[in-house]
Order: sequence, then structure tokens, then C-alpha cells
Amino acid sequence: MENFRLQIPTDIRFGKDRLGELPEVLAPLGKRVLLAYGGGSIKRSGLYDKVVDLLTDNGFTFVELAGIEPNPRIDSVREGVRLIRENDLDVILAVGGGSVVDASKVIAGGVYYDGDAWDLVLDSSKIGKAVPIVDILTLAATGTEMNRNAVISNPETNEKLGTGGWDLIPRASFLDPTLTFTVNKWQTAAGSADMMSHLYEQYFNHTPAVDVQDGIAEGVMKTIIKHAPVAIKEPDNYDARANLLWASTLALNGLVARGRSGGWTCHAIEHELSAYYDITHGIGLAVLTPRWMQFCIDKDDKSHAKLATYARNVWGLTEGSDEELARQAVEKTYRFLHEDLEIPMTLPEVGIETKELVLEMSEKAVLHGGLERDKFVNLSVSDVEAIILACFEEMTF
Amino acid sequence: MENFRLQIPTDIRFGKDRLGELPEVLAPLGKRVLLAYGGGSIKRSGLYDKVVDLLTDNGFTFVELAGIEPNPRIDSVREGVRLIRENDLDVILAVGGGSVVDASKVIAGGVYYDGDAWDLVLDSSKIGKAVPIVDILTLAATGTEMNRNAVISNPETNEKLGTGGWDLIPRASFLDPTLTFTVNKWQTAAGSADMMSHLYEQYFNHTPAVDVQDGIAEGVMKTIIKHAPVAIKEPDNYDARANLLWASTLALNGLVARGRSGGWTCHAIEHELSAYYDITHGIGLAVLTPRWMQFCIDKDDKSHAKLATYARNVWGLTEGSDEELARQAVEKTYRFLHEDLEIPMTLPEVGIETKELVLEMSEKAVLHGGLERDKFVNLSVSDVEAIILACFEEMTF
Repeated sequence: MENFRLQIPTDIRFGKDRLGELPEVLAPLGKRVLLAYGGGSIKRSGLYDKVVDLLTDNGFTFVELAGIEPNPRIDSVREGVRLIRENDLDVILAVGGGSVVDASKVIAGGVYYDGDAWDLVLDSSKIGKAVPIVDILTLAATGTEMNRNAVISNPETNEKLGTGGWDLIPRASFLDPTLTFTVNKWQTAAGSADMMSHLYEQYFNHTPAVDVQDGIAEGVMKTIIKHAPVAIKEPDNYDARANLLWASTLALNGLVARGRSGGWTCHAIEHELSAYYDITHGIGLAVLTPRWMQFCIDKDDKSHAKLATYARNVWGLTEGSDEELARQAVEKTYRFLHEDLEIPMTLPEVGIETKELVLEMSEKAVLHGGLERDKFVNLSVSDVEAIILACFEEMTF
Repeated sequence: MENFRLQIPTDIRFGKDRLGELPEVLAPLGKRVLLAYGGGSIKRSGLYDKVVDLLTDNGFTFVELAGIEPNPRIDSVREGVRLIRENDLDVILAVGGGSVVDASKVIAGGVYYDGDAWDLVLDSSKIGKAVPIVDILTLAATGTEMNRNAVISNPETNEKLGTGGWDLIPRASFLDPTLTFTVNKWQTAAGSADMMSHLYEQYFNHTPAVDVQDGIAEGVMKTIIKHAPVAIKEPDNYDARANLLWASTLALNGLVARGRSGGWTCHAIEHELSAYYDITHGIGLAVLTPRWMQFCIDKDDKSHAKLATYARNVWGLTEGSDEELARQAVEKTYRFLHEDLEIPMTLPEVGIETKELVLEMSEKAVLHGGLERDKFVNLSVSDVEAIILACFEEMTF
């Protein structure tokens, strides 16, 4: 285990019927609020009206930043910074999924940065002080509600990049499973695939003696494998939604990551797919992940042991050599994503029909993700090309 | 899953060779320090000198509170409160095991309480504002380094009781596995049994659909089962000490507890044993736990399912009915504690030779622990008597 620092002070308010606590949580942070949200779903669900009533009834004033995109764009961030500065706002209330929270984080840092907010995405060391953020989450997926990271897209440059800062971690997050009842099958599946990928990116790693972290990762993976299919079939199953929501938060709040280094491959590749094609992040991860695992097995024997541990501890597989177990685990993973989560598992089915940009995306993935070093299996540009090209066909076992 | 609030802001500094960060961590909290510690072990190990040098070289002044007991006593708490008030100190630096941190917590709350500190142990609602605490932990066991709880003994009344408050959670904890190299076999075993018991107290519970929490608990249990025997045989095995240390912290920082209610039985019974006989807390728990599990199986069929899940997911057992698996798990637990941790598993072997106080201790356990309601298996006074009496003989399987 490596040295690490962990500090996750977010005040988690988990459960149903507790939105009434919002005023007491917001009040110490200020009375002038930037209300940030995405599309119309929070208006259709009635959540918007409830939040507005709570704010106005308790003496808060607010300015709205609406229309934050599913892959949040730097233009929304710039607009948020402008609104806070012009209206002298104290606190951001982010209502929505991970994209709204991610945009809010870079807005929060951007307010105190003397320059264009995109600089903060390109170089996280420029992020210092930030406006406090409180969020009300409506989608279980990214884990942003309890960490200091954000991913922002720049359509002008086809870039989708991660950044982060200690002060960007939300001060409080309201996690109400009932708010995720209206998340459709597609987004539930995408969110579940995203969480699984977060765990894989941290778990498939060569730092020795991280049993605590791996044990937590395996426990959270098994929870997702159990509850995601239930949530897809019964969208208002509280227990399934609650477990998924809390799993998504813990999958990326530092508990699994700290104490080791390296990792993160599929996200780097997927960020290129969604930067170029604006596909749903979690779906792109689902399509890539089993091909990446397969590629790791074929390229590097050193990958077999950990994939076999995953096979044993997560899927309960017992028979075969490490390599055989690893291959069985790939099939389990693929079938879970395809059959249980009902995700179309080829790129043409999700809107990427031609191979003309594969080389360009592969080059950028290797560059932005540093994929040639310190990964579970290091990948060259041609390796990434091979993985993406494999995503054009169904896998067979 | 039930509603919950979770906020664990402790700044964890985990790893070796990072004590040099102490001044930067302490400085924002103040320059006038209460240096709290236990016996002479931190002087023998050289840690005391390092801390004193760091303080004096960086412009801190300090007053010492030495000699805090393994089961920390209210008199030490009173003395700490007096020292802080008389010397107008800003911050407590607790150096030692869980008992030093626990005493520091009630000192921290006691400074702002207008009355005797024992009141805060009897009634946690009287704890409000508190002096900030930073700790340097030297023993993996209680988890106090990342939670808001404390246990204090009062020898005058033979009482050992828990209390807690939001402001008592340490601001920062230095967790250096190398500082636990000198912990002897006995204390390593006791600490490991204590961590396992914390997990059991939370895990054996009837709140439905807490898969995230149970998955984390199982992962942490498996880590302890793997690494504790290694640490006992090779006291300076860094990987084993690191996993044990981080496991102990996560076993009781809220991650496993939140989202469910009820629980905590063996601790309530053990607190009476150590209040009356001052035995080592973790050893008392080790002796009690398998008898308690056995009693649960015999008394209440509803206990079988969860004990069988424990058998499957923690011990990898597969064959038999739920009741059979539950009984196999008790044997595994007993043999782990007795053979792998080398703990003497009867009360006479740990210094409780007569049965004359069993009834009195059982009555107090039921009273203080509320054991007759909302537990995994509710226990009457005669049930607790039966469990304690079973601890006078070896178990046979």
C-alpha cells in the first residue's frame, strides 16, 4: 500500500423525504444562490418547484443557470462564472446528474480565477479557492457528489478532459433514491456501467497489498451487479435505487483509489468517443470495457492474476487457471452489460458507424490519458485502435 | 436501507515518513498544544522525542497530559480539561492508541461544558463545541481516529460507557503503519479482535437491503483475517500492518453503520467485563463473540440467514443449510481467534476466575446496552448470564 491523503468532508444527506433540510444546509454558506440544472426533467418531476419554493420561503434569492448538457460544455461553465460574478452570488445549488455537478465545480473554481475557465480544465493546478457547492442528485452514476473531480467538454477542440481541486468537493449532497425513480432504462444502465467502470479503473492495478481497497471495490461491484438489473426492471424499487445510488457515490470518493497509483484506461478512450460523437458516457464505457479486458489478457500475462481474482471474488467463478478464469470473467462482464443491463454492445448500435476517426481518437486517448505508462496494461496507439475496432463487432465466447 | 447522514471530515495522512507534515496540520488550529499520551511506549520508541522536536522547532508550546490508561478513566479526562483551561490551550495532540484519543475527545468537549466531564459520558446530548483534536495513532484497533465516539471508564462506579458528538471527530489523523511495528502479539491480536467485533456489531443486523454496507464489511473482514495472523508472526511486515491499520479505521467510521439501525451486543457485555476486571477490551470481545453467535443460532432461527451469508461471503463456506453454515462459521470464527490470533479463549485464562459477579455484570449489560430490544437477537439478563458462563469453558465442535 502506498502513502495517501484522504479527506472527504461532504455532508451526505441520504434518503427520502429530507429535502426540507435544504435551507439549514445552505444557510451557513450564504443567501444568494446560483441554481444550476440541466434539461427539463427536474421541472417535469416537480423537483424544480419544490426547490424554488424552499428557497423563496426561506429568504434565499437565486439566479438560474439552466440547460447544462449531459457532457457539460465549457460554455455553460463560462456562463455560470459570469452569473455569479455579476450577481455577487454566495453558493451554487446544483440540481441534476453528474454533469450539472461537474459544471458547477469548474464554475466554483472559475469565479476566483483571473482568466478563461478552460485553463482550469487544462491545468488543475490553477484551481484554488472556490465557491461552495451543495447538490441534489437525480442520477446514480458519476460519484462527483463526494469527490473533487470534474469532466468538461470543449466542442470547439473536440476535447473532453478531467480536472479537480480540493475545494471543489461539494459541501453537502442530498442523495434521495426516489429522485432516481424517473431515470429511464437507458440512463440507469449507463449509470451502472459508469460505476462499474470507476471500480474497474481503480481495481485493475498492480500496486501490491491493497486488500482493504480491493475488498471494498468487490463489495460495491457485487452490489451493483445485484441491484442494477432490478432497477432497470422495476424503476421504483427503493432498495435497488438506494443501493445503486450509494454504490455510485462510494465507487469514486477515494476509498477505492487511495493507497495505489496508476490506472484509468477505458475512461481515457471513452472520453475521445464522446468528445467526437457525444455518445452517452456510460454506454461508451460498457462497449469498451470487455474488449479492453480481453486485450489485456491477450497482450500481457501479468494481467491474468488480478482478472482471475475479479472472477473469483466478484463472479464466484472457481474452475480453471488464472487465464481461463480471466476469460470467463470477461464473458460474465459482457453478458451482464448486454443481457442484464440491456446495453447494445457495439459502436454502430450507439451511433458510431464509421471507422474513419478511430486513429485520431486513439492518438488523443494515448496522449490525454498517458496510456503508454503506469497502467494495468500499457497501451500504444495501435493497441487502442485495436480495442476500438473490436467494438464494431459483437463479442463471441 | 434507512435514511442516514454521513460526514467524516477527518484529514487522513496515511503512510510512513510523513510526521514532518504535523506542523502544517496543527498550525491552523493553534500554537498552544495539549500533548496527550499514555504510558512509556512512545518514549521507548522515540516517537515522543520526534513529536517534541517538531513542536518546539516550529514555534508551538505544549503542556503534557501523560499516563492515560488503556481503559481511559474519567480522572484523566478531568485533568485534561483542567490543563487546557488553566493554560489556555488551543488544540489537543493525542499520541497513542484508541484510549488516548477517546480521552482526548471527552476532554475536548469538557472544556466547553460547565460541569463535571462525567456528565458528558452519561449524556452525549450535553456535548457541544469542542477543542480541535489531531492524533498520531500507534495501535490499530478502535477506529476512534475517524469517528465521533469515545468510551470512558469510571472506576468508582464500575462503569465503562460510550458517548460521542459531531465536534469530537479528529480534524486530522496520522496513520503510520511503522508506528504499529512495536505493538506486541497480544495487543495486535486484541486490536484485530476489536476491529472484527466492530464489523460484526454492525453487520449482524436485520435492516434489509444494505448490500453496499455489507459488501464493505465483508471486504474489510477478509482483509483482517488475511493480514492479522501475518502481523502477529512478522510484527514489522509493512503490508500487513498497513492493511490492519486502514481496516481498523474503516471498520468504524460510519461506512458500515449508516443506513441501518440496531445492533451492538458484545461490546455492551464486554464493557461490563472490563469495567469490573480491567481486562483487555479486544480480548474480552474475542472470548464473548463466538459464544454470542452460538447463542443467537440456538435462540432465534431468524439469525441463521445472516450468519450463513457471513459463512459464505467471508469464510467461503458453501455446503449445508443456513443453520449448518451458521454453525460452521462460529467454528471458523473461534479457530481464527484462538489459533491464528493466539488468543486464550476462556475467561479464567484472561483473569476472570470466579462467577460471582456474572449476574451483576449481566444486569448492567442489559441495562446499559439496551439488550432486550432492537438487537440482532434480543437478550435478557439470563441470556447474557448464559453467554458469559459459556466463556468459562473451551468451545468444542
